[in-house]
Amino acid sequence: MTTNQHGRDFAAWTGAIQARVEAALGRLLPAPDIVPQRLHQAMRYAVLGGGKRVRPLLAFAAGEVAGADASRVEIVACAVECIHAYSLVHDDLPCMDDDVLRRGRPTCHVEYDEATALLVGDSLQALAFQLLAEYRLAEDAAVQLEMLRMLAAACGSRGMAGGQAIDLGSVGKALTLAELEHMHIHKTGALIRVSVALGARCGAALSRQELENLDRYAKLVGLAFQVVDDVLDCEASTATLGKTAGKDAAARKPTYVTVLGAAGARALAEELRADAHAALSGFGAKPGRLAALADFVVLRKF
Amino acid sequence: MTTNQHGRDFAAWTGAIQARVEAALGRLLPAPDIVPQRLHQAMRYAVLGGGKRVRPLLAFAAGEVAGADASRVEIVACAVECIHAYSLVHDDLPCMDDDVLRRGRPTCHVEYDEATALLVGDSLQALAFQLLAEYRLAEDAAVQLEMLRMLAAACGSRGMAGGQAIDLGSVGKALTLAELEHMHIHKTGALIRVSVALGARCGAALSRQELENLDRYAKLVGLAFQVVDDVLDCEASTATLGKTAGKDAAARKPTYVTVLGAAGARALAEELRADAHAALSGFGAKPGRLAALADFVVLRKF
Repeated sequence: MTTNQHGRDFAAWTGAIQARVEAALGRLLPAPDIVPQRLHQAMRYAVLGGGKRVRPLLAFAAGEVAGADASRVEIVACAVECIHAYSLVHDDLPCMDDDVLRRGRPTCHVEYDEATALLVGDSLQALAFQLLAEYRLAEDAAVQLEMLRMLAAACGSRGMAGGQAIDLGSVGKALTLAELEHMHIHKTGALIRVSVALGARCGAALSRQELENLDRYAKLVGLAFQVVDDVLDCEASTATLGKTAGKDAAARKPTYVTVLGAAGARALAEELRADAHAALSGFGAKPGRLAALADFVVLRKF
Repeated sequence: MTTNQHGRDFAAWTGAIQARVEAALGRLLPAPDIVPQRLHQAMRYAVLGGGKRVRPLLAFAAGEVAGADASRVEIVACAVECIHAYSLVHDDLPCMDDDVLRRGRPTCHVEYDEATALLVGDSLQALAFQLLAEYRLAEDAAVQLEMLRMLAAACGSRGMAGGQAIDLGSVGKALTLAELEHMHIHKTGALIRVSVALGARCGAALSRQELENLDRYAKLVGLAFQVVDDVLDCEASTATLGKTAGKDAAARKPTYVTVLGAAGARALAEELRADAHAALSGFGAKPGRLAALADFVVLRKF
């Protein structure tokens, strides 16, 4: 295939996965007419109809490497997306980032109210664990328990929520590159890594070396994602992003741009992309989607 | 044994379980010097050093009926207590009940800050699922997956968080007794029921009939707990309760006292206690602790 054909093939694949995940989330979220209706409507508002679905894409691409059944990866993809959506709803609350725009629409607490948004996040977290426990995702139930443990660890105080706490404590501070990386490895990295890990575990058992390589890839992509997010927050418009641009600077938050400058941050993202490709070298031609996703994450414009 | 001896034996048992759960929570919560320290300190503040530990007591008593290994029940007890503590931290936030006093101390967001309290709740929910996934709780991993599913369902939008949403929607309304019961079966009942169910599932498999009887008992005790809570909110002092008294009336919330009057609510609690005892009749002498806990829940003064 030519580069253009590869590009078209990848775009078709991402579109198909995004549509599949959207449909699955629509089925797996409680219907809007189930009591309590307002909560269920707000949960659907927070999850459906938007987002790049980067974590589901990573789960599906990792699942392909392990020859996983797509119907199993679909559940994992919905679970990590529920966690991601919950984290956005809580991060946007007035006591956190106090943001009014997300995915081009009013944030959940603006569209509904703060109390409902709080419960939306709480309920989405519970739903993610319910999905991983309810559907059969591995031949061996012990493997599935380990998947649940990994998701819980990635979400908790030593994962995503902990990264959020470190972020809160960093406002107005000048962080070193290492400190910034530490924060993001938790705040956005933990969920991205576990998306890859869970997708892979839906399939045939990979070797320890293969799992380590996938995890290295995921860690690099997670960091690249954040570096690019920081650049876009600086350089793109609110209309393009669908969320408030320039808010890091307004909130006096240390970012890759404040630490490295925009050009330095772009160079770092390129380096991380190359390293992510290198981490996949042991798989031969198999992990084509994962490689393309590393490019997608770094080259995206929103 | 005489009634007094029974009373002393039960008091010694509850004291021992409370101490055991306190120690286990102290071990299982991240240490206060682990990064992010402030979050971990706030999590410990929210969970340790207080509370009647009603849900852990129920889990241990149900575990006894099934001959469960106490070290397994201990993990279940800590998980349900983490969920309970998270729900209190989030319920006390300004956008919910806006309360400043809990267990005789400032609430978590008063002692720390709102953003930290939000993350404390989020992290405690994740920790509960991590505990249930990480430790071996059943011979059959499939049984343990089912335990995780049950906890997630009890926490989510059709369980505890949903009950909270119904509660939000009820302020200033005159509910019927059936509507009030519907709210509380979710808001406090779901977690109490799952505490009993999970404790029992740490032991030898019970018959379907036995599990149904235990669940019936737990549902009745959960309702009795809420009825008594409403009476105490009206009749006891803030000093006795360790939380703000009279807040239901101040918040114009429908309660068992507003619907039935204080005497009617007390009579209902008595009826529920008798029904809870009756639900245990099939077990012979075995469920002595469960029967005593039904008494404890109804006869408590705080």
